[in-house]
Amino acid sequence: MNFDAIKDLFSSQFGLEIQNLAYYETAFTHSSYVNEKKREDLNDNERIEFLGDAVIELLVSNYLYAHYPELREGDLSRFRARIVCEESLSKRCVELGLDRLIRLGKGEEANGGRKRPGLLCDLYEAVCGAVYKDLGLEAVEVILADNIYPKIKAGRFDRQMDPKTALQEELQKNGEINLSYDLLEESGPAHNRVFRMAVSLDGQVIGEGQGQSKKAAQQAAAQEALDQLAKKDQ
Amino acid sequence: MNFDAIKDLFSSQFGLEIQNLAYYETAFTHSSYVNEKKREDLNDNERIEFLGDAVIELLVSNYLYAHYPELREGDLSRFRARIVCEESLSKRCVELGLDRLIRLGKGEEANGGRKRPGLLCDLYEAVCGAVYKDLGLEAVEVILADNIYPKIKAGRFDRQMDPKTALQEELQKNGEINLSYDLLEESGPAHNRVFRMAVSLDGQVIGEGQGQSKKAAQQAAAQEALDQLAKKDQ
Repeated sequence: MNFDAIKDLFSSQFGLEIQNLAYYETAFTHSSYVNEKKREDLNDNERIEFLGDAVIELLVSNYLYAHYPELREGDLSRFRARIVCEESLSKRCVELGLDRLIRLGKGEEANGGRKRPGLLCDLYEAVCGAVYKDLGLEAVEVILADNIYPKIKAGRFDRQMDPKTALQEELQKNGEINLSYDLLEESGPAHNRVFRMAVSLDGQVIGEGQGQSKKAAQQAAAQEALDQLAKKDQ
Repeated sequence: MNFDAIKDLFSSQFGLEIQNLAYYETAFTHSSYVNEKKREDLNDNERIEFLGDAVIELLVSNYLYAHYPELREGDLSRFRARIVCEESLSKRCVELGLDRLIRLGKGEEANGGRKRPGLLCDLYEAVCGAVYKDLGLEAVEVILADNIYPKIKAGRFDRQMDPKTALQEELQKNGEINLSYDLLEESGPAHNRVFRMAVSLDGQVIGEGQGQSKKAAQQAAAQEALDQLAKKDQ
């Protein structure tokens, strides 16, 4: 393991001086490497990833709580889920170059493990777990302040909302609203039912959509309403 | 709101001196109370509960990580889920007497809200969120060290495992094992199918069970195997 490269990365990128290298050795070791080596003194990064995930969840929760006082609990949860997820964290992992430093088994390496989003997300979380154990919560905050908070601020995670949520949030910017979804039509055989639903704002239909469940039809209706609103705004 | 009672509780029970009462006012205010009063200056406890939940998750994760070095990630997750759940946290809430201090709307009060596990769990989390914002992570740790960690240590959360997990964990204490589940029989009409399954240890049947899904039948088989093992141990 290239400890010098790991030390350099934390020092130059974040100004963090690593104290206990053992945590990082664990964080940068994939289970496939341990399985291959069969060495009992080696730990893979799965336990410390469990811890790191909880650390990131707390820090992001705290950030959203402080910076989005207008968001309700459900919206905060959905917002957090878009930030603390495989797609997002695997990208942060590569941006920092953590992917180059992890030890993989030969099979995992040959199968493209070093580019697999699940593995990269776990690695990012494991590294945050290591920093938490080694240097404390404030040090993990330094990392997130570098590569997650600015992206939240820039709106990177705003638009991955499902259409119903997005429509609700878009419309209630102008005050309290009453959105309702009504079933217009149900057709097709039992195993291939199609639902058609309308979404109404204060009693007036603003979108219609269909899908193989009522929920899917509602989302389609909300998407149509969003599309109509976007056209109006142009 | 009885601020003196709240201050006294934290001071006498935990030696914590509250600094900013506003957080506790929020934590001890249920949405039903806000809805009833229609006062814009009132905040209900749902946002701070979102934060408190993440605080508890991290502290419990850290405790389990440190005290159960032999548990793998999946086992740690399941263990944590038994601790940070409605059933468990609602009991802690009542033990501390937090339930007596929350402000409810009249309807919620009349409908027995003050005894509802969901409400009580949320209250416990909200209070931990308030302590986190007011006094920091270490102060929340004082609370968990008083009323959660000792119960983990005493094995209070050990036995709520599902039978399949419990059987796996029980048997692998003695080294690597090979547990398999096999379908013995499927009977009954399509809408009321009954499955019968066997669980085998290294090829030898150690339990049988039935249920309305293969999964349920597996759990029943695992339970029978656990019961047999318990008899042997006597």
